Amino acid sequence: MTITIVGLGLIGGSLALDLKRNGFAHHVIGVDESAEHCTYALRTGMVDDCADLQVACIQADLVILAVPVKAVVAILPKVLNWIREEAVVTDMGSTKGEILSLMANHPNRRRFVAAHPMAGTEHSGPAAALNGLFHDKAAIICDAENSDEDAVRLAERLFRSLFMRIIYMDGTDHDMHAAYVSHVSHISSFVLALTVLEKEKSEANIFNLASGGFASTVRLAKSSPRMWRDVYEQNQENILDVLDSYLGKMQQFRDHIASGEFEQTYQLMETANAIGPILEQQEKVKN
Amino acid sequence: MTITIVGLGLIGGSLALDLKRNGFAHHVIGVDESAEHCTYALRTGMVDDCADLQVACIQADLVILAVPVKAVVAILPKVLNWIREEAVVTDMGSTKGEILSLMANHPNRRRFVAAHPMAGTEHSGPAAALNGLFHDKAAIICDAENSDEDAVRLAERLFRSLFMRIIYMDGTDHDMHAAYVSHVSHISSFVLALTVLEKEKSEANIFNLASGGFASTVRLAKSSPRMWRDVYEQNQENILDVLDSYLGKMQQFRDHIASGEFEQTYQLMETANAIGPILEQQEKVKN
Repeated sequence: MTITIVGLGLIGGSLALDLKRNGFAHHVIGVDESAEHCTYALRTGMVDDCADLQVACIQADLVILAVPVKAVVAILPKVLNWIREEAVVTDMGSTKGEILSLMANHPNRRRFVAAHPMAGTEHSGPAAALNGLFHDKAAIICDAENSDEDAVRLAERLFRSLFMRIIYMDGTDHDMHAAYVSHVSHISSFVLALTVLEKEKSEANIFNLASGGFASTVRLAKSSPRMWRDVYEQNQENILDVLDSYLGKMQQFRDHIASGEFEQTYQLMETANAIGPILEQQEKVKN
Repeated sequence: MTITIVGLGLIGGSLALDLKRNGFAHHVIGVDESAEHCTYALRTGMVDDCADLQVACIQADLVILAVPVKAVVAILPKVLNWIREEAVVTDMGSTKGEILSLMANHPNRRRFVAAHPMAGTEHSGPAAALNGLFHDKAAIICDAENSDEDAVRLAERLFRSLFMRIIYMDGTDHDMHAAYVSHVSHISSFVLALTVLEKEKSEANIFNLASGGFASTVRLAKSSPRMWRDVYEQNQENILDVLDSYLGKMQQFRDHIASGEFEQTYQLMETANAIGPILEQQEKVKN
């Protein structure tokens, strides 16, 4: 199968690596607006060819859009116009609502499968691509009933070939739940970095006082501003909703400390501890 | 050397394991108010003996207090009364200001070395103890000039035997910098867990939408409420200071999203990205 991957960053690059390794793709065509990314991908054998978007779409059995979500919104209608009749398009975007509503009346809508792999790292670009990035992670397919059955089957085969667990979800629900779990985590990490950089002027002190705990909590603050700006724009309401909840909890925590109500902070922390068993369940599935 | 370790939790247990392995301790006596912890430590060979606090102090060349900071405050004066003349006491507490000011006039003050190892995990209790927990981490020694020189030398030998980097700091500065880097990280993680548990009622959704990013950011929310309650009480002012800064940054982030000022969120994230090189410097030292 010929697979066109649009966007040779962390996600697109990692897909290219694994879909060639596992034999799912016989030929991988890369598309990227950065000539540097294309050169890197060709030189390292990550892709077989690079081409411009239209040429690459015409040749593909499957087109995977692995670009920031606003770029998905911008190019998806054209991609659906250009592909061959039996070809399929899927995307890897972190938000789904606007993409799905913009595509609703596209004549080729049913060749599109909206997807979101719950995988990534804080790094970006093709050099950040990793073998096995998707292994044992969840792949969320949204509004599958609005895609042709054979298109959904192909997307499922794609994700299974990467050893992903497939979850089906309504697109609107997806955005809400993604905000509640994934998007708020990234923002809390960005804000932690901003706070530490403001308060702690000495890099040596950050370095010396950063235990593994700080590194873990602040890790996502290294993530791509471009990708995340698009997510905020596409998922504004859900993100505001969860940030208001976060701000309320933080204020409550702060006020207990300010009032010397340390037992109340104990209660809050005991409640927070409940996240442990949920995460351990996840680790068990991974191992 | 006979070493008494008071508190056989994550820190005390990990110290016992490594100080026996590396030959620094010839005999380790454990003290813990939990009979279960003592039984576990004896059964697994983590300690050679368990004893009550006074007996264990009389026998020791070095007493290490690895209990929550309020317990350090409560027992340190007694421990300094009980030890032999040439013996040394050190503590592993996360805050230093109150301990140091309470000890200022103790007749045996100079046998005490205030320390803080920047190491830990989100787990607690003796079963959470790990070989190598302290390896390549920073050990902070506070107000060394108020301890006898031989006492400081012994603490340094202890930390070097564990392959730690030794940092000297003023006790008051320590508490401020610890709040700015370590304490705020833990609170942001507790608050993230509380938010996600409140907004996302479905454990299956948390499970399915939790990528590695969420797990990393929320990891510290599994930490011990007892340990952290004490830290908030001991370091109230510095923590309020950094939480107010955190709340301000989060409000700013939220307001930009609410006003559709996505380019401003881009700028904030680009600023936050600066934490990357600082963390990488730390990883380099580790590897």
